Amino acid sequence: MNDLSIDAARLLERIRTLGAIGRDESGRLTRLAASDTEKVGRDQFVSWLDEAGLEVAVDRIGNILGIWRPDGVGDRQPLMLGSHIDTVIDAGIYDGCYGVLAALEVIQTLKAQGFASSRPVVVVAFTNEEGVRYAPDMMGSLVYAGGLDLDAALATLGTDGSVLGDELRRIGYAGAQEPGFFKPHAYIELHIEQGPVLEREGIPVGAVQNLQGISWQMVTIEGDANHAGTTPISMRRDAGHAAARVITFLRDRAKGSNTPTVATVGCIDFEPNAINVIPSRARFTVDLRDPDEDRLKEEEAALAAFLDHLAAEEQVGISVERLARFEPVTFDRRIVELVEKAARERGLACRRMTSGAGHDAQMIARIAPSAMIFVPSIGGISHNPKEHTTDEDLVAGANVLLDVVRELARKDCL
Amino acid sequence: MNDLSIDAARLLERIRTLGAIGRDESGRLTRLAASDTEKVGRDQFVSWLDEAGLEVAVDRIGNILGIWRPDGVGDRQPLMLGSHIDTVIDAGIYDGCYGVLAALEVIQTLKAQGFASSRPVVVVAFTNEEGVRYAPDMMGSLVYAGGLDLDAALATLGTDGSVLGDELRRIGYAGAQEPGFFKPHAYIELHIEQGPVLEREGIPVGAVQNLQGISWQMVTIEGDANHAGTTPISMRRDAGHAAARVITFLRDRAKGSNTPTVATVGCIDFEPNAINVIPSRARFTVDLRDPDEDRLKEEEAALAAFLDHLAAEEQVGISVERLARFEPVTFDRRIVELVEKAARERGLACRRMTSGAGHDAQMIARIAPSAMIFVPSIGGISHNPKEHTTDEDLVAGANVLLDVVRELARKDCL
Repeated sequence: MNDLSIDAARLLERIRTLGAIGRDESGRLTRLAASDTEKVGRDQFVSWLDEAGLEVAVDRIGNILGIWRPDGVGDRQPLMLGSHIDTVIDAGIYDGCYGVLAALEVIQTLKAQGFASSRPVVVVAFTNEEGVRYAPDMMGSLVYAGGLDLDAALATLGTDGSVLGDELRRIGYAGAQEPGFFKPHAYIELHIEQGPVLEREGIPVGAVQNLQGISWQMVTIEGDANHAGTTPISMRRDAGHAAARVITFLRDRAKGSNTPTVATVGCIDFEPNAINVIPSRARFTVDLRDPDEDRLKEEEAALAAFLDHLAAEEQVGISVERLARFEPVTFDRRIVELVEKAARERGLACRRMTSGAGHDAQMIARIAPSAMIFVPSIGGISHNPKEHTTDEDLVAGANVLLDVVRELARKDCL
Repeated sequence: MNDLSIDAARLLERIRTLGAIGRDESGRLTRLAASDTEKVGRDQFVSWLDEAGLEVAVDRIGNILGIWRPDGVGDRQPLMLGSHIDTVIDAGIYDGCYGVLAALEVIQTLKAQGFASSRPVVVVAFTNEEGVRYAPDMMGSLVYAGGLDLDAALATLGTDGSVLGDELRRIGYAGAQEPGFFKPHAYIELHIEQGPVLEREGIPVGAVQNLQGISWQMVTIEGDANHAGTTPISMRRDAGHAAARVITFLRDRAKGSNTPTVATVGCIDFEPNAINVIPSRARFTVDLRDPDEDRLKEEEAALAAFLDHLAAEEQVGISVERLARFEPVTFDRRIVELVEKAARERGLACRRMTSGAGHDAQMIARIAPSAMIFVPSIGGISHNPKEHTTDEDLVAGANVLLDVVRELARKDCL
């Protein structure tokens, strides 16, 4: 299949062009969903769709689809390729954008070659994958898959007080199509790994076979604010110390197990947060992830049991609020094997892997066979201006996507 | 000595009157040093000094002295009694004020009785003991004792951008006297305990024999911000987890030792403080206290050794900034014994104890034999509107102070 390759220069140029849109005076890149800067990015993407001769469709949640309908595909379900072009605050240029622009590049290459696809091929940029401005994240794909009511999503209040539906109308991306109007036959998402595994192992292609389940909780511990100098250790109800015990418990448990479970405490605050006052209250987040639902439930149960034990031992009050919960997703084995085959035929090392992050693919997997392709992230860094993948890896990943699409485009595939 | 007692009603009434000054619309009490509300409190105190017929002196750092010079005392050094009348934010009414108003009450009682003191007796309200608006705390007494340069203290920039010297002038309390102009023969400070010990043991009087040394440090741990989902536990440099290990280390060490050492982590923050990002940075305060200087040094060294070990084990960078360091203070044994004797003769249970908090007495101890008397704090609560001491205990403490002053006022005492 190595007779055909994507236009590397065009792909890299588009990634850089899109990555230049939404920079502030100090050069920080931020294109929050449905913002003014994201509108400029959307307009740029649509102009590329036009340039490639694709049919442009926008649905009511603002997902942008670029549709290639080769002759004779009739009303067959499309192959869908894509990701998102919104970003976090102070972002890198690859997260999401790479997958969208590589998908466009693949379609444009196939179209230019007169490739005989048995199905339409669609590139999609889903709205609000990052969830920074409007919660939850992966919103556009979730609505597309029917997992979130459209009107509820449009009514979402942003962190800046805006309403998503109003903002989409304002920037001209409240489309006419019902989300999900074009049900995919299969969905493939190419993405940077956002983790260190591929780079550390020197492997350019990851065939993503599943995606971790995610459990987000907010834990609040209530103790007594007392004077740091006058309260003997034995008389303390120290919420901060109790919080520290939870953090070390989670780490010790994750480290001691032979599983891929990860546990992270990323946010914390103490009250009153004074140097000479024992914390009366500690609030912190717990992010638990595991590709196996039973094991994720086990981890949640182990945390709950530890909190009960801690409340009694430290004489503190503990309450837990669930912030988010996604079950693990298993991707389509056949597509994963196609990714491995394509990499092999290109002479690229490949490994099966688990996605630690959430992606639009996990939502679309509800309605179509799906999988993902990862390329290495240098240093595992993402959501950060230092996010980087080498040009060579970017091009190699896009060519693997090209080959997988060519296989899937055959009449009887899947 | 029980022939004479203070005027309980007058003392309690004054405590309540002063405690009503500086309340905001919602009833919160705040009289920060040299603020408009503190000026009203100072004016009230001075009017009571006038009413008691005392000579009023204000020094250049704003300390207010009410001086009683009985006939025949000549130029003998005074007995000095006092504390402070500035407060923290959302304060209780007893911290500091009780000691100042009880001292005034004692002097007024002795004066009215024509008590033959061999020395002047002075009540003092030191400026900025709390240190909330201007650092360091205990500033007025520190300057009075010659431990901080007057001009440097007056140039102190407040948390609100004000300059202490300007504010003292503005509120009319930039006095003419050089701080320390009246060197005390002895100093006694009556204060609420601000801890739970006396109440829990049912003892109304504490004879404070020493004051803990205080070591304040800010610890900063630097790791790597990486994605919480994609970074295997073994590849993490998690600054938040390392911080939690320090907190549990300090607690385990304090709990495991048979010493009065206390260790508190009161402030913490993580960066970037995002639920799905491993903390790249954790900053937290460590408050270590011990009445024994050697032991305090040992605790500091143990923490430093643990941080070294942690930096290597967790592959994180750790830096430590010293915020404050006060050596323990041992009070004058003779005065402590006079407190015990006075309590005994009043039929009050008394125990020797260590002050866990800092007080003006620790500064004046540099220039004169000093000691403190504690009364119980209900629930050990202080720096809080719930701060409370029963009227009975307040009156008992003031009478013990009265008796101690009568002993010290004898010609050959100390």
